[in-house]
Amino acid sequence: MTAKLAEALAGIVGPEHVSVEPGALAAHARDATPLFDAMPQAVVHPGSAEEVAAILRYATAEGVPVVPRGAGSNLCAGTVPLHGGIVLVLTRLNRILEVSRDELLARVQTGVPTAKLAAAAAEAGLLYAPDPGSHTVSTVGGNVATCAGGLRGLKYGVTRNYVLGLEAVLPTGEIIRTGGRLWKDVAGYDLTRLLTGSEGTLAVITEATVALLPKPETTGTGVAYFPTLADASRAVTAVIASGIVPATLEFLDQKCIAAVEEFAGLGLRADAGALLLFGDDGQAATVEGNLARIEGICADEGALEVTLAEDVARADALLAARRCSLPALSRLGSLTVLEDVSVPRHRLAGMVARIDEIAAAHDLLIATFGHAGDGNLHPTCVLDPDDGEAIERCHQAFAEIFSAAIALDGTITGEHGVGAAKLPYLEERLGGDQVALLGRIKRAFDPAGILNPGKLGS
Amino acid sequence: MTAKLAEALAGIVGPEHVSVEPGALAAHARDATPLFDAMPQAVVHPGSAEEVAAILRYATAEGVPVVPRGAGSNLCAGTVPLHGGIVLVLTRLNRILEVSRDELLARVQTGVPTAKLAAAAAEAGLLYAPDPGSHTVSTVGGNVATCAGGLRGLKYGVTRNYVLGLEAVLPTGEIIRTGGRLWKDVAGYDLTRLLTGSEGTLAVITEATVALLPKPETTGTGVAYFPTLADASRAVTAVIASGIVPATLEFLDQKCIAAVEEFAGLGLRADAGALLLFGDDGQAATVEGNLARIEGICADEGALEVTLAEDVARADALLAARRCSLPALSRLGSLTVLEDVSVPRHRLAGMVARIDEIAAAHDLLIATFGHAGDGNLHPTCVLDPDDGEAIERCHQAFAEIFSAAIALDGTITGEHGVGAAKLPYLEERLGGDQVALLGRIKRAFDPAGILNPGKLGS
Ligand SMILES: Cc1cc2nc3c(=O)[nH]c(=O)nc-3n(C[C@H](O)[C@H](O)[C@H](O)COP(=O)(O)OP(=O)(O)OC[C@H]3O[C@@H](n4cnc5c(N)ncnc54)[C@H](O)[C@@H]3O)c2cc1C
Ligand SMILES: Cc1cc2nc3c(=O)[nH]c(=O)nc-3n(C[C@H](O)[C@H](O)[C@H](O)COP(=O)(O)OP(=O)(O)OC[C@H]3O[C@@H](n4cnc5c(N)ncnc54)[C@H](O)[C@@H]3O)c2cc1C
Repeated sequence: MTAKLAEALAGIVGPEHVSVEPGALAAHARDATPLFDAMPQAVVHPGSAEEVAAILRYATAEGVPVVPRGAGSNLCAGTVPLHGGIVLVLTRLNRILEVSRDELLARVQTGVPTAKLAAAAAEAGLLYAPDPGSHTVSTVGGNVATCAGGLRGLKYGVTRNYVLGLEAVLPTGEIIRTGGRLWKDVAGYDLTRLLTGSEGTLAVITEATVALLPKPETTGTGVAYFPTLADASRAVTAVIASGIVPATLEFLDQKCIAAVEEFAGLGLRADAGALLLFGDDGQAATVEGNLARIEGICADEGALEVTLAEDVARADALLAARRCSLPALSRLGSLTVLEDVSVPRHRLAGMVARIDEIAAAHDLLIATFGHAGDGNLHPTCVLDPDDGEAIERCHQAFAEIFSAAIALDGTITGEHGVGAAKLPYLEERLGGDQVALLGRIKRAFDPAGILNPGKLGS
Repeated sequence: MTAKLAEALAGIVGPEHVSVEPGALAAHARDATPLFDAMPQAVVHPGSAEEVAAILRYATAEGVPVVPRGAGSNLCAGTVPLHGGIVLVLTRLNRILEVSRDELLARVQTGVPTAKLAAAAAEAGLLYAPDPGSHTVSTVGGNVATCAGGLRGLKYGVTRNYVLGLEAVLPTGEIIRTGGRLWKDVAGYDLTRLLTGSEGTLAVITEATVALLPKPETTGTGVAYFPTLADASRAVTAVIASGIVPATLEFLDQKCIAAVEEFAGLGLRADAGALLLFGDDGQAATVEGNLARIEGICADEGALEVTLAEDVARADALLAARRCSLPALSRLGSLTVLEDVSVPRHRLAGMVARIDEIAAAHDLLIATFGHAGDGNLHPTCVLDPDDGEAIERCHQAFAEIFSAAIALDGTITGEHGVGAAKLPYLEERLGGDQVALLGRIKRAFDPAGILNPGKLGS
């Protein structure tokens, strides 16, 4: 079986772009999600949309599962080949096809790393706004397929807001082009947005046209420490209610502050119950005015201390505090399970309180950080990987955390995706009728069910 | 047949909300699109999502077509009941359920007029950004179902960018809720965006949660006259390339200027080949700076004259010039056929030149105005409704205009929708594979094909 498969794939992409040896297979059995793995039968690196089409036609004809994969940095087991088959890696499609200053857009193949696109845009004096924490490794295709968010989501939105057009290959082998170089286009159902966030279950995305923005004149950053997360959360609501929508409003709870400080020694204040990182960009006078007003609001809401970063170096250090939350927590135990619930913004503190209660009830260390402005939280459980009983408790705790988020009008995933990890909880969020509808949409794209089976739409 | 239908509907919504008399039927045989009409068998005004569900279940069981309708202001024959059946009017669902300043959102029933939502937002110090020219009559449901644009689209985007969540009734009667009060939610395929722009062919939308923005501190408006549209188009590209994304960049060609001046006597300059209306909003200093820079760029690109509106009254007069283009043109002949192509922004002048050539070749008066910043043009043909031969030439001319737009990387509809009017051209834009896929998606929602047949997905 594997030999026949390898031969067929080699006939399409050339033998040098097909792997079936155990090392390569094992490297593609997992992604960035702990506790999930499954072995594929082959790993293939196509070099063009046409090669992708030939692979998918073959897979549909033979009933072989195909899992599209960018950098494999997702946190929902989205690229684990649950049913074996082919892992289709898009990283050879790594060309930036154009960056247009006149049209404020870029066209890239989807294996391009996010940071490479951002750098090409910056070189042209432009901004590619979506900036997931993983941007140095994640691919544009992975970002589109998960509708990735980032640290600038509050003001700038998520990947969805920047995708203008896609080239995609259907599981049955047709190559379609949706949208284009157009700011406005309503000809047909919005397949561009339907494919965005489809997690590799509807089509393989081979090219993306994305909107860029003029680069903001200046950026500014500040930090506020609060006695409790409830105080920080009140400040977030007050900032928004004051009419400011800043680029960044991120938070760390007390456990994260301690872990980050121990890890990176940035001089964070250890006695605070919560840290709020705020930032804005735009014209200098506006940024200065907004940061001063946020500073004032934080003080009014009981901040222990508010500091504006006096220079870029200090601002970068503060952003690093937020970005290194996960590695810092990872040092506390060799297994970290990071989750991704989202609630209406003003319910942030209530949600963290529920998380803390649930963690205590299950005797677990769960620290929480995230995008306060978006109401998007990343509760992170730190564990000993050999303690099977604790892992059981962790699963139980997250099931309760998902239910708690839903009860607060929230959702089970704000930006990381459903993948295999959250599929068991999807019906609780969407209801059975909607899950059934997702299945019918899936089959409209993928009648043989070969594309990323066991994930969305299954 | 009609009697049985009326009885069934009366049993669901009460007899006072069902009409089968000829006057009511005739009033729902057309929308704002000329040259299209077809008689329904019944008009029904449901009062709740549950009543909508009961109607759709009945229609699916009996195979009766159902056409959802808001205000019927669409320009693509989207609500013409091509196959008879029921016209389902949503205007009784007219409650604003909440406007939240803390959460920057509103929740409304979909029969609410756009302007009423905008006014409720303004009362809370907030902005509902999408502002189609028809906002005093159009409904939020119609806006969502067509993904309506407006005069602020360049900076603020279209309806899609503001829809956070929907309640919708499937043709088979299930009531689903997509998205919610959340800035970030990737649990499942993006049905919120798939329903946005689905033109009443996938589900009936009964409630929408939409994002609001803090109300901008100030707004400013200016007007520039150019010798030719090519000059104006160059100025548009130069503004964007300079790093400014203003709220408004609208244009009128020479024929529109003349018609509007004759209609409204606003003192527009008759010798200009094109008029560019520009506007921005935000903090006072930023707006002032941006308008001054746009003024300078227009002058550099050869403007005959550039004026900034000295007060709100003058700014309103200028916006009125743009908003009254259609009524002004309508006075030139009693039939106006307005179209809606969209091209990459820098191709605006090239597209208008092609439109002028095609109009001349077919001996037709076609004037063009539109959203220059978005590359979205409204070529408008003015005709005598009794001249059947001219109407034939008009159809032929628009077919050529659609092809010309596609050849310039553009599309056959930027904001008005496909409806029945553009369906014959859809395959030229999307290709046969994609059109077939739309049909499969349609069937995933509507197995019996009862919802707005003869439109998207048919
Ligand atoms: C340290 C760290 C920080 C992170 N920070 C963020 C963050 O701030 N915001 C955020 O949203 N996420 C974040 N993530 C999660 C992850 O990086 C994102 O989901 C990212 O978009 C995945 O990109 P990738 O190229 O690694 O995709 P992969 O992990 O390879 O794939 C992700 C999903 O997309 C599908 N897919 C990939 N490429 C294609 C394609 N071309 N066509 C069709 N389907 C495809 C896969 O099948 C899979 O379902 C973070 C992860 C880590 C490890
Ligand atoms: C003078 C004038 C100016 C205009 N300016 C603009 C403009 O600037 N930008 C723009 O985009 N459009 C514009 N339009 C077009 C039109 O007003 C918009 O398309 C508007 O969104 C239609 O809203 P409506 O309530 O009238 O919808 P309708 O015309 O009743 O319906 C439009 C479509 O939506 C469907 N639909 C309506 N309600 C629902 C629902 N609740 N659930 C499911 N489907 C539904 C219908 O089936 C139909 O396919 C203009 C029209 C006119 C006459």
